[in-house]
Amino acid sequence: ALLAELAEAPVVRDAEALRVTITAGPTREALDPVRYLSNHSSGKMGYALAEAWARRGAQVRLISGPVTLAAPTNVERVDVTSASEMLSAAEQSAAESDIFIGCAAVADYRADTVAEHKLKKADASDTMTLTLVKNPDIVATIAARSPRPLVVGFAAETRDLERYARDKLTRKGMDMIVANDVSSAGLGFGADDNAALLLWHADDTIERQALPAQAKTDLADAIVDRVLSLYANRAATAHD
Amino acid sequence: ALLAELAEAPVVRDAEALRVTITAGPTREALDPVRYLSNHSSGKMGYALAEAWARRGAQVRLISGPVTLAAPTNVERVDVTSASEMLSAAEQSAAESDIFIGCAAVADYRADTVAEHKLKKADASDTMTLTLVKNPDIVATIAARSPRPLVVGFAAETRDLERYARDKLTRKGMDMIVANDVSSAGLGFGADDNAALLLWHADDTIERQALPAQAKTDLADAIVDRVLSLYANRAATAHD
Repeated sequence: ALLAELAEAPVVRDAEALRVTITAGPTREALDPVRYLSNHSSGKMGYALAEAWARRGAQVRLISGPVTLAAPTNVERVDVTSASEMLSAAEQSAAESDIFIGCAAVADYRADTVAEHKLKKADASDTMTLTLVKNPDIVATIAARSPRPLVVGFAAETRDLERYARDKLTRKGMDMIVANDVSSAGLGFGADDNAALLLWHADDTIERQALPAQAKTDLADAIVDRVLSLYANRAATAHD
Repeated sequence: ALLAELAEAPVVRDAEALRVTITAGPTREALDPVRYLSNHSSGKMGYALAEAWARRGAQVRLISGPVTLAAPTNVERVDVTSASEMLSAAEQSAAESDIFIGCAAVADYRADTVAEHKLKKADASDTMTLTLVKNPDIVATIAARSPRPLVVGFAAETRDLERYARDKLTRKGMDMIVANDVSSAGLGFGADDNAALLLWHADDTIERQALPAQAKTDLADAIVDRVLSLYANRAATAHD
């Protein structure tokens, strides 16, 4: 046991006293009692982040959509299903957090009306039209609060990664964005590995750091490093 | 070990030499590389049926949508995602089967066109219209084959259970239907227990048997009993 402990990298508890809220996984938007709209997010990246923050001493609340993962040690998990439920939980938690990380793949749209009973196939017609309405943007909502935590968002794209990510960073008022290309084989959704491009505001410019493909657990630590440095800068500026 | 063996109910291998195909779980219909339409089927009922048939000596092929269950012992599992993939696998397997059980919750509709890249939110508009087209009806397709296996379908309803089930039984040309009310708390989708109403054609009438709420594993054995008796009758009639 002693040897095993010595062999492990020493844990730096450099996030102690920080309260961190993380959203993870997909959301599911009901169409009727049995059908739903969702996406392929496995929750692995958000769970890896929750684990990394907790290991480094932070007080972590993980707001999780439906996934098959177990909550990491020392993490408070709040289970939600829809984007609306996730938004309520996120707003409540953000109010008492220093850092908010929106890692969930929130459904952009939900059904206009959720049918109370199972929709029946209309035999006369071979097509069906579904009217969807836009869901609230959780990260943008948190970023618009005042006062607000440091806000980190994610962008999962299949093309034009940096262009879309820069646009999102600015438009949604985030402090930092973690962008990844989900079209790469073996990376991103469902995979254990991921690469990422970090973009953040620094004075009047946007700075960038490319993190190569690696285990999501290692990537999580690299993201935590960058967020901690941004948080320290922001705290220093606020106290000037 | 001996005591444990003695305590177990003796296994009656009354389905030996029968080739059984079972579909199970939900299907997922892609909207784009990350989003999909699906339903809450856990696959538990279909997997319980596969296990019951295999335990009783049948040669079982389980065509499964995306679920988190492990394949039962002595069952050949074929993994599929969409309704179209499930249909191909089902047609191929039904051609060499004595009994076909459509237990999967096949999506009724799929996207008209699957976007190659992730769909972007249209900021100008707060709604989105999705055009869906009807998926092939797998059970009805198998029931329309000639020659064809004995065909058993499932109906999951939230109201008017028997009326919808009788209509499906006749309209889709099945030999038997297993109907269950998925609106009952603790039963049906995702649950370990289930109740069911069995309906089957007998001469010119429809006969019925109500199976009370019980573990899906027990319910599976009761369904196998009824299917075996129908199969024996059909074989006797065919040889008259």
